[in-house]
Amino acid sequence: MKFNRLSTFTASIAMLLAASVTAVASDPLASWNDNAAKQSVVAFVERVTDEGSPDFVPVEERIATFDNDGTLWSEQPYYFQLAFALDRVKAMAPDHPEWKTKQPFKGVLEGDLKAVMAGGKKSLIEIVAATHAGMTADEFEQIVTDWISTAKHPKTGRLYKEMIYQPMLELLTYLRANGFKTFIVSGGGIEFMRPWTEATYGIPPEQVVGSSIKSRYEVRDGKPVIVRLPEIDFVDDKEGKPVGIHSHIGRRPILAAGNSDGDWQMLQYTTIDHSPSFGLIVHHTDGEREWAYGRESHIGQLDKALDDAKQKGWTVVDMKQDWKTIYPGE
Amino acid sequence: MKFNRLSTFTASIAMLLAASVTAVASDPLASWNDNAAKQSVVAFVERVTDEGSPDFVPVEERIATFDNDGTLWSEQPYYFQLAFALDRVKAMAPDHPEWKTKQPFKGVLEGDLKAVMAGGKKSLIEIVAATHAGMTADEFEQIVTDWISTAKHPKTGRLYKEMIYQPMLELLTYLRANGFKTFIVSGGGIEFMRPWTEATYGIPPEQVVGSSIKSRYEVRDGKPVIVRLPEIDFVDDKEGKPVGIHSHIGRRPILAAGNSDGDWQMLQYTTIDHSPSFGLIVHHTDGEREWAYGRESHIGQLDKALDDAKQKGWTVVDMKQDWKTIYPGE
Repeated sequence: MKFNRLSTFTASIAMLLAASVTAVASDPLASWNDNAAKQSVVAFVERVTDEGSPDFVPVEERIATFDNDGTLWSEQPYYFQLAFALDRVKAMAPDHPEWKTKQPFKGVLEGDLKAVMAGGKKSLIEIVAATHAGMTADEFEQIVTDWISTAKHPKTGRLYKEMIYQPMLELLTYLRANGFKTFIVSGGGIEFMRPWTEATYGIPPEQVVGSSIKSRYEVRDGKPVIVRLPEIDFVDDKEGKPVGIHSHIGRRPILAAGNSDGDWQMLQYTTIDHSPSFGLIVHHTDGEREWAYGRESHIGQLDKALDDAKQKGWTVVDMKQDWKTIYPGE
Repeated sequence: MKFNRLSTFTASIAMLLAASVTAVASDPLASWNDNAAKQSVVAFVERVTDEGSPDFVPVEERIATFDNDGTLWSEQPYYFQLAFALDRVKAMAPDHPEWKTKQPFKGVLEGDLKAVMAGGKKSLIEIVAATHAGMTADEFEQIVTDWISTAKHPKTGRLYKEMIYQPMLELLTYLRANGFKTFIVSGGGIEFMRPWTEATYGIPPEQVVGSSIKSRYEVRDGKPVIVRLPEIDFVDDKEGKPVGIHSHIGRRPILAAGNSDGDWQMLQYTTIDHSPSFGLIVHHTDGEREWAYGRESHIGQLDKALDDAKQKGWTVVDMKQDWKTIYPGE
């Protein structure tokens, strides 16, 4: 090889290398394997953002809604908000000596979750009322902030707020970079999420929709406060999700992501008789790196929505196959 | 004057003229007279957006909430949404022969508003239920869109949606240009406002908070719909406004604007024990160009909030003195 040719060859290699580096660095979905799931969401975003495409969607209508538990962060062995509530019962116990002999609190304090669950929904509501109501909104925000900054998951040893899915963080960022407004639409408590969703997901409080208890405005000692009342206001789950979206957002999303039958109606509402649109289901298939569950699970059951996915054209993400990493920094 | 001097003089005049033109063109609050109200809001915006100021507020916390009736558009001789409801009763009457003999509908059809009002709140709820519920959300949106595009105010002959305040449009735009997120927080119906607030005020549906009726998600003939139910869900007025803000936005505004005692609690919630913050009251003092009313008015009564304004440091806009124009294109 003559010098000129060698030089050209070297230059070409260098350019190729540079191009690859750029491609890797600029892949907005770097934690996704290059499978059908990734390809389909990228193709959708390209279609709706291309002004020349018949499927172009104006920026103001690019609404994307994400379930939280099991879709943006883990939810096993039980919803992290329940872990919060149980921790609160323990923290509050010194002021409630009667809890030592009174279910469901007795069960919580003795670590006997079976006794707690034996009381069913009524027990859970009692725990929520005791731990989530009675204080002002500012006080509750502080309680949640303290807990989320320190509480760790017993199995992974990670902070709960670090058990978020890196590929979904990338998807949120990618959508926002393409003019989407990203919302959380979760069965979880709206005020349990708002204190940390902005720092964690880049989703501000006004873009969080969730279940809520009632509240009341008061002026206490000359200061305005919102008081949290022990009464359910709205359950943002199943058929509640389209209602929550309608109430908070006021227009149908063009993209919705969930992981359980609790998201089934949100996926319908987003995609049926509404084109272009995109439905995404995170399927928990990775028992090694996360948890594997679905059709039979008590938490995050995925059955009807999975049956419906093929017919409705929803994209099912196989966590094990489609995600290179699960949690950030792995 | 020598040629050189003349030339310099001419050039100076030209520059001065150009500067004035630029100043006028670039005054974001051109329809406001240069009085204390304008000066105080500009000073506030400059303080909270100046990174070197001790009162600097990060962009994500620059939340501004605006009442609608009487603050962004007129509300006399009665709320425009009532005009909508009365028009709907007339439009629906052919399908309801029983209304000819049944109050409050009989009164509406005969133009006898006294008979309607004699029934008090119960009658109004009956009218709202008949005209605002029973259809899907999409159908209601279309009904509102048709009405707002064509219905005219009997006194001004303007479309209702053209009876918006030019100075307030400028204020909304000015705030957004300074990183504020602008919300409507109104006692009016949330779904009555959403179909037109984006085109009219630049405020998208997800930034509209208002009173609501309950709704239910259904799949009808294979299509997902939200059905509007004849039951009050939330009244976003008086002490309801801070609750509505808390529920929809999840943080306290740093600027709130209203015009009546219905906004009193929102002004408290925004400004008391919360600094920097700004409260603004539109005082209807212009009986010639708009309407003059306040302390004794049945619609838009402004009494307690006006008493409180001085002590709390809220800025009171005197419509007659402070606004050069009222409606756009005047």
